[in-house]
Amino acid sequence: MRVLVIHGPNLNLLGRREPEIYGGSTLEQIDDSLVALATELGVELETFQSNQEGEIVERIQTAMGSVDAILINPAGLTHTSVVLRDALLATGIRFVEVHLSNIHAREEFRRVSLLADAADGVVCGFGSESYLLGLRALVSTA
Amino acid sequence: MRVLVIHGPNLNLLGRREPEIYGGSTLEQIDDSLVALATELGVELETFQSNQEGEIVERIQTAMGSVDAILINPAGLTHTSVVLRDALLATGIRFVEVHLSNIHAREEFRRVSLLADAADGVVCGFGSESYLLGLRALVSTA
Amino acid sequence: MRVLVIHGPNLNLLGRREPEIYGGSTLEQIDDSLVALATELGVELETFQSNQEGEIVERIQTAMGSVDAILINPAGLTHTSVVLRDALLATGIRFVEVHLSNIHAREEFRRVSLLADAADGVVCGFGSESYLLGLRALVSTA
Amino acid sequence: MRVLVIHGPNLNLLGRREPEIYGGSTLEQIDDSLVALATELGVELETFQSNQEGEIVERIQTAMGSVDAILINPAGLTHTSVVLRDALLATGIRFVEVHLSNIHAREEFRRVSLLADAADGVVCGFGSESYLLGLRALVSTA
Amino acid sequence: MRVLVIHGPNLNLLGRREPEIYGGSTLEQIDDSLVALATELGVELETFQSNQEGEIVERIQTAMGSVDAILINPAGLTHTSVVLRDALLATGIRFVEVHLSNIHAREEFRRVSLLADAADGVVCGFGSESYLLGLRALVSTA
Amino acid sequence: MRVLVIHGPNLNLLGRREPEIYGGSTLEQIDDSLVALATELGVELETFQSNQEGEIVERIQTAMGSVDAILINPAGLTHTSVVLRDALLATGIRFVEVHLSNIHAREEFRRVSLLADAADGVVCGFGSESYLLGLRALVSTA
Amino acid sequence: MRVLVIHGPNLNLLGRREPEIYGGSTLEQIDDSLVALATELGVELETFQSNQEGEIVERIQTAMGSVDAILINPAGLTHTSVVLRDALLATGIRFVEVHLSNIHAREEFRRVSLLADAADGVVCGFGSESYLLGLRALVSTA
Amino acid sequence: MRVLVIHGPNLNLLGRREPEIYGGSTLEQIDDSLVALATELGVELETFQSNQEGEIVERIQTAMGSVDAILINPAGLTHTSVVLRDALLATGIRFVEVHLSNIHAREEFRRVSLLADAADGVVCGFGSESYLLGLRALVSTA
Amino acid sequence: MRVLVIHGPNLNLLGRREPEIYGGSTLEQIDDSLVALATELGVELETFQSNQEGEIVERIQTAMGSVDAILINPAGLTHTSVVLRDALLATGIRFVEVHLSNIHAREEFRRVSLLADAADGVVCGFGSESYLLGLRALVSTA
Amino acid sequence: MRVLVIHGPNLNLLGRREPEIYGGSTLEQIDDSLVALATELGVELETFQSNQEGEIVERIQTAMGSVDAILINPAGLTHTSVVLRDALLATGIRFVEVHLSNIHAREEFRRVSLLADAADGVVCGFGSESYLLGLRALVSTA
Amino acid sequence: MRVLVIHGPNLNLLGRREPEIYGGSTLEQIDDSLVALATELGVELETFQSNQEGEIVERIQTAMGSVDAILINPAGLTHTSVVLRDALLATGIRFVEVHLSNIHAREEFRRVSLLADAADGVVCGFGSESYLLGLRALVSTA
Amino acid sequence: MRVLVIHGPNLNLLGRREPEIYGGSTLEQIDDSLVALATELGVELETFQSNQEGEIVERIQTAMGSVDAILINPAGLTHTSVVLRDALLATGIRFVEVHLSNIHAREEFRRVSLLADAADGVVCGFGSESYLLGLRALVSTA
Repeated sequence: MRVLVIHGPNLNLLGRREPEIYGGSTLEQIDDSLVALATELGVELETFQSNQEGEIVERIQTAMGSVDAILINPAGLTHTSVVLRDALLATGIRFVEVHLSNIHAREEFRRVSLLADAADGVVCGFGSESYLLGLRALVSTA
Repeated sequence: MRVLVIHGPNLNLLGRREPEIYGGSTLEQIDDSLVALATELGVELETFQSNQEGEIVERIQTAMGSVDAILINPAGLTHTSVVLRDALLATGIRFVEVHLSNIHAREEFRRVSLLADAADGVVCGFGSESYLLGLRALVSTA
Repeated sequence: MRVLVIHGPNLNLLGRREPEIYGGSTLEQIDDSLVALATELGVELETFQSNQEGEIVERIQTAMGSVDAILINPAGLTHTSVVLRDALLATGIRFVEVHLSNIHAREEFRRVSLLADAADGVVCGFGSESYLLGLRALVSTA
Repeated sequence: MRVLVIHGPNLNLLGRREPEIYGGSTLEQIDDSLVALATELGVELETFQSNQEGEIVERIQTAMGSVDAILINPAGLTHTSVVLRDALLATGIRFVEVHLSNIHAREEFRRVSLLADAADGVVCGFGSESYLLGLRALVSTA
Repeated sequence: MRVLVIHGPNLNLLGRREPEIYGGSTLEQIDDSLVALATELGVELETFQSNQEGEIVERIQTAMGSVDAILINPAGLTHTSVVLRDALLATGIRFVEVHLSNIHAREEFRRVSLLADAADGVVCGFGSESYLLGLRALVSTA
Repeated sequence: MRVLVIHGPNLNLLGRREPEIYGGSTLEQIDDSLVALATELGVELETFQSNQEGEIVERIQTAMGSVDAILINPAGLTHTSVVLRDALLATGIRFVEVHLSNIHAREEFRRVSLLADAADGVVCGFGSESYLLGLRALVSTA
Repeated sequence: MRVLVIHGPNLNLLGRREPEIYGGSTLEQIDDSLVALATELGVELETFQSNQEGEIVERIQTAMGSVDAILINPAGLTHTSVVLRDALLATGIRFVEVHLSNIHAREEFRRVSLLADAADGVVCGFGSESYLLGLRALVSTA
Repeated sequence: MRVLVIHGPNLNLLGRREPEIYGGSTLEQIDDSLVALATELGVELETFQSNQEGEIVERIQTAMGSVDAILINPAGLTHTSVVLRDALLATGIRFVEVHLSNIHAREEFRRVSLLADAADGVVCGFGSESYLLGLRALVSTA
Repeated sequence: MRVLVIHGPNLNLLGRREPEIYGGSTLEQIDDSLVALATELGVELETFQSNQEGEIVERIQTAMGSVDAILINPAGLTHTSVVLRDALLATGIRFVEVHLSNIHAREEFRRVSLLADAADGVVCGFGSESYLLGLRALVSTA
Repeated sequence: MRVLVIHGPNLNLLGRREPEIYGGSTLEQIDDSLVALATELGVELETFQSNQEGEIVERIQTAMGSVDAILINPAGLTHTSVVLRDALLATGIRFVEVHLSNIHAREEFRRVSLLADAADGVVCGFGSESYLLGLRALVSTA
Repeated sequence: MRVLVIHGPNLNLLGRREPEIYGGSTLEQIDDSLVALATELGVELETFQSNQEGEIVERIQTAMGSVDAILINPAGLTHTSVVLRDALLATGIRFVEVHLSNIHAREEFRRVSLLADAADGVVCGFGSESYLLGLRALVSTA
Repeated sequence: MRVLVIHGPNLNLLGRREPEIYGGSTLEQIDDSLVALATELGVELETFQSNQEGEIVERIQTAMGSVDAILINPAGLTHTSVVLRDALLATGIRFVEVHLSNIHAREEFRRVSLLADAADGVVCGFGSESYLLGLRALVSTA
C-alpha cells in the first residue's frame, strides 16, 4: 500500500508559531513520526507540502496510478477550495482528511469543509497525533 | 488511565441493520476490540450503552472522580442534546467524539454537532475503527 | 399483518386538556376505535404509550421480527428527535406518521418533521380520526 | 353531504408516467374508487381536473352553495399558488389536502404548502389511497 | 397556594462544577432557601430534580389538580424540548421559567427558549437568587 | 387620459365573503365608484377582471397604444407572478398597485410584492377606497 | 374630525435636495396643500415636523384626546423605530403611513416598515400627492 | 428527430419593447431562423407560444409520443412554476432551457430556475442566438 | 447602595393604555412601590423617565460615580439602540434589564435584546412586579 | 476648505472608560490634534459632539452651504440610524466615516454600517489616529 | 477575430475520470474540435489550460490587446474566485462562460457563479459540445 | 521600522483599466509615493505584487524576523482566502488592510473580509491615498 501525505498551506510553519493552536511539533517531526508508523504498518509513504493550491492539485493528479490513498491536511483550503475537491474526486483516490486543531472550536467559517463528505473519514483536534490516527485509519479500513 | 466508553441510542443494534452505513460489527465485537486495545495501551476501560439520554447523563455524572477520559459516540443525540453537552461540560472530564459513519456525507442536519467544539477532537467515518482511533487519541494526547 | 401503534409523550392526557386542539377523545377511546378497526381489517394490533424517548426507542427495537408496520404519533418528538428517526430507520420497519392536530396551522417549529421523509406517508389534522386513517393506509398499501 | 374532488395540473397523466413516484393507477381508476367509496359512505361526489390555475379557481368559486367540502390534490400549485389559497379561503368551503407521493421525501421546495395551514388536514404518501383516506376524513369529521 | 419547583438535567451537580457560570450554591442550599421563602410567603412548596425529560414530563402531569403553579429551571431542555413545552401547555398550570446564568451572554443557541413565550415570565442571570425571584413573582402575580 | 383597471383573481367574489378583510363592497360597486370618479376627473376608464394570469397578461399586452396608465389590484398574483411583472415591464405602461387589505398586517408571505418596485406607487389598506385613491394618484401625477 | 400630520426627520429639507427622489415641493407647499384639502373635506388639520424621535413620540402622546387620526411620514424612522411604533400603539390613535418615494424601489432595508402592520393603510410613491391621498383615506374610511 | 419549441409568456412581444434587454428580433424572425437551422440540421421543428401556463402544460402533454425533444424559453415561469417542471418531468421528454437575456445579470430572483436541474443543459445571454445554440445542443447531443 | 431606575420611552403612559399588555399600574405607582421596597432593603433610589434616547444616555453618563447599579426598562429601545448599549458599557455600571410584558410572547422582533448579554440578568413578564424583582436582584447579588 | 467633525453618542466619555477598546485619549485631546493637523493642512475645522441623533442631524443640515466636507464617527448610530444616512445624503456634503476601534473585531452587529456605502471612504481601528487619517483623506482627495 | 480558450483546474484530466459527469472526450479532442470550428467560422483561436488560479489570471492579463474574446470554463474556480472575476473585469475583454456538466443538477454550491453576471452569456450541460456552442455564441453575437 | 507592502492579484493593472473604480495611478506611481512617504517617516519599505495566492503567502512567511509590519491590499483575495488569513496569523506580524475603492459601495460579496478582524485596522475608498494613510497608521500606532 502506497500512501501520499499532503500538507496544505502554511503548515511548513508548524512548531514556530501559534503552538497553543497547532501544537509544538515541526512539520519535519510529524513527517518522521509518519514514516516510522508507516514502516511499522508496512506501508510506503511519501510526504508533500505546498502553499499553492495549484501545486497540490497537480501533485494529486500525478498520484493517479502510483498511490493507493491520500492523507491530507488541507489547512485553509478546507473551507474554500472547490478545485481541490474536484482534484480528489477526479482522480478517484480514496482519502482521509485530518486537522491538527479542533475545527469545531474555532471561527464559525472553519466548521464547513468542502472536502469532508467526499472523504472516507475525518480526524481533527489531536495535534500531530491526528496524522498518525489518519494513517492508521487508511490502513485498517483498506 | 481510566476510560469510559459511551455508546448512544440505537447502537445496541449494530451489526444487525444498515451495515452499508454503520458496518457489520456488533457492539460486542467493538467492545472486545476496545478492551484488547486498552490492554495493549495499558488503560482501564469500561463500556456503557443506553437508549436514554437521561441514563447517559447520569453515567457521565457518576464518572466524576473515577474516570479520566470519556470516549463517546453520541449517535442521534449529537445533533439535538444540549443536556448531554451540559453533562460533559459540568463534569469537566475530557472527551473525544467518534462516529461510525462519515456524518458529513449524510443528511444535512447531521453536519452540526452540539458537542464537537467542547471535545478534544473528533473521529468519524471509519466504522468500528473510529472507536479504536479515538481511544488511541485519548491515550496519546493525555 | 401485525401493527404496533405508538403514542408519543403527553398523549396519555388526551381528552382531559386542550380539546380545542386535540379533540375530546381519550387515549383509551382512540385505542378502542383502533382495535375495532383492526378487527374489521383483519389486523393484529398492539398499542404503546410513553413519555420517554428512550422507552419508545426500545419498544421500536423490540418490534423487529414481531411487527410488520408501525403507526406512530410522535407528538413533541416529531420536531426534535434524531434518535427516534434512527430507531425507525435502523429497524427498517415501515411506518406511517399521524398527528391529531394540523401541524401546519400551529407554531412555525411544528411544520418541520424529522421523521416524515422516512415515513410511508403522513396524516394530520383529523383528531382521533387521523389514527384510523393511518391504520387504513398501512393496511391498504401493504 | 356533497363533495367536490379537485385534481390539479398534470394529474391527468397519472398511470402513464413515473409510476415509481405516483403509482400505477390512472385518474379514471382513482375517480372510480372515489365514487364507489362515496356511495358506500352516502356522499354525493363530483370530480374535476384541470391544468389551469384559473379554471380550478373558478370551479371552486362556483362550488359555493352547492358543495359542502372539497377534496383537493393541488399538485404543483401546492407550493406556489396564493391565488388558489385565496379562492379556498374566500369561498369558505372546508377542504382536505391530499398528495399521492410523500412530499417530505422529495425536492426541498415541495415541503412547503401554501394551503395546508388553511386545510382541515393533510394526507400524503399513500398513492391513490391518499384520496380515499381524504374522503373518509372529510366524512368522518363533518 | 401550592408551588412545584422543577430542576432540569445536571442541576444536581450545582456547587460542584463551573461555579463561575452557575454560582457556588448546591441544589440543597437552593431548595432550603426556597423552602424558607415559601414559609415566609405562606406558600406550600415541593421540589423535584431529574436528568430525564420523561420523568419531568410525568411529574408535571401528576401535578394537575394538586399544584397551582410551577417554578421551572429547564436547564439544557430549554432550547430543545417540545415535549416539555407540550406537557406544560397540556396541563395548563401557569409557570415561571428561571435560569441561574444569563442565557443571553453564552452560546448563541442558548438565546432561544421553546418555553418562554408560554411562561408567565422569565428570570435569568442572578444565580440561585433567580429561583427566589421567580417564586416571589409567582406569588405576587397570582 | 385613458386608464385600464385590472382586478386580479378572486376579486369577483368581493362583498360576498370575508368582509372583515376585504370590506363589504361588491366589485360592481367598486367599478361604479371608479367610473364616477373618472368622469369627475375627466378620464376614460375601462375595467377588467380575470381569475387567469394569462388572460390578465394578454389584456395588458393589448393595452399598448390604447391605454395611458393601469390601475391594478393583482390580488394573489402580487406575491408569485414574475409573468405579470414582465407583462407590465414589457408594455412599458405606467401603473399603480392597489390592495383592499393592509398586506403588511396579514400572512408573512403577503409582505413581498413582485410588482411594487416597478410601480409608480402603491396604495393599500383602505378597502374599496384604495382604488379611488389609486386612480387619483394616476391622474394627479400624470 | 381632527387630523395631526407628522413629518419625520429630514423632511424639513424637502424641495432643496434630491428632487429626483423626493420631488420639488417644499414642506411648506405640502402643508399648504394639506390645509387646502382639509378645508375642502371639512377637517381640522395641524402639522408637525421634527428631526428628533423623542419629540415626535411626545407629540403623539399629547395628541391623545385632542386628535382623531394621524397622517404620518416617518421617513428614516420607518425602518428602525420600535419606540415610534409603541407610541402609536399606546395612544391607540388610528393612523395612515405615507411616503413620498416608492420605498420598494430603493435600498433593500427600506422595504421593511416597523409601523405598516399597525397602520390603517399605506400610500407611497406619489411625491407630495402621497400626503393628499393619505388625508383623503383617513377621511373617507373614518 | 422532431423538436418542439416553446416560447413562454410575453415573448410574443419580442422586438417591440425593451430591446436593450431582449434584443431587436421579433418572435417571427426567431422562428424563421429556427426553421432554417432545423432544415440545415435535418430536424422537424414546430413552434408554440402562449401566455398561459396551463396551455403550455397541455402542449407539453400532447407532445408525448410525437416529439423527441423540447427547446423551451420559459420566460417568467422559469422562476415560479412547479407545474411546468412537473409537466416536463411527467412526460419524460428531454429538454433544453434557453433565455434571451443573461438571467444572472438581472434581478436576484431571476437567478433561480425551477427547471434547470431537470434540463439537459441551459443556454442564456445571447439574445435570439440562444435559441439557435439550444437547437444545435439538442441535435448534437441526441 | 445607590440605585438609578430608568424608564424608557412611552412608559410615562403606563396605566392609561393597553392594560392587557402592560398592566394597570401607572408609572407613579410603580415608582412608589420601588421607593417603598428600596427603603425596606436599605437602598437609595432615584427614578428617571424619558422618551429621548439621548437624554437617557446622558442620565446614564452622569450616573458614573454617584450610582452603584441601574435598573432599566429600555422599552422600545431594547431592540434597536446600540447607543444605549454603548452608554451602559462605557460607564461600566452594572445593570439589570426588566420588562413589564413577556417579550418572548409578542412580535418576533421583541425577542432580540441589544442589552441583555451585557446585563447582570433579565426579568420579564410580571407587570410592575418585574421592577420590584429586578431591584431585589440588584441588591441580593451585589 | 471647511471641515466639520462630528462625534457621535458616548464619545464625550473617551479616555475615561474602556481604554482597551477606545484608547486613552480624551475627546478634547483628539479635537486638539485635529485642529493642529487642520492648521498644518490649511483647513478650517469645527467640531461637534452630541448624544442625540436629532441634534446631529440638525447640525448636518445647517452645514449645508457653510461646510465642504464632514468627518464623522457615528459611534453606535453607525449600525442603526437610517435617519443619519438620510441627513448626509440629503445635504449632499461629502463625508468620511471613522471609527476608533476595529469594528470588524467586535460584536457581529458592528460589522454592518448603514453609512459606509454612501461615504467617500472609511478608516477604522487606529484609535484617535483614525480621525487624523480621515482628515488627511478628506483633504488629499478633495 | 481572435479568441482565447481557457480551461480551468483539473480539466487536463478530461476523458480519464468521471465520464458519467464530464463525458468521454479528452481535452485534446475538445481543443481539436474547437480549432476545426474556429477555422470554419474564420476565427483565430488559442487554447490554454492551468491548474493555478494565478497563471490563469496572468494569461488573461496578457490577452489585453491581442485577444477579442475569451471562452472560459472556470471549473472549480467558478464558485470561489473573486480574483478571476477581477481579472476578467479589469481587462475588459468580453467573455462567455461554459461548463461541461449541468451545474444546476449537482451540489448546491455549484449553482452560484461569481463570473456569470459579468459574462455575455453562459452555456452548460452539453459535455464538450458546450465549448463549441460557446464559440459559436462569441462569433455570432460579436 | 521595516514595512512590507503587499499588492494582491490584478493590482499590476492599475492605471490601465477601470479608473472610475480604482483611480488613474499606476502601481509604480503608488510605490513611488509610498517610498517617498516612508523616507519622510523614517521607515524602511519594500513592495511586492503577485497574482498568485501562494506566492503572497510565501512572501509573508519569509517576512518573519525581517519585517515589523505589513501593509496589504489583498484585492480579490480579501473575500475568499482563509489561506492568506492563516499566513498573517501564523507569522504574527501586525498588519493594516487597505483598499483603493470603497468596498461597501460595490457588490454585496465585497463587504465581507476574511482578514479585517485580524488586522490592526482598515482604510478603504481613497484610491492610492488609501495606501499612504495605511502607512501613516502603521507608523503612528507602532
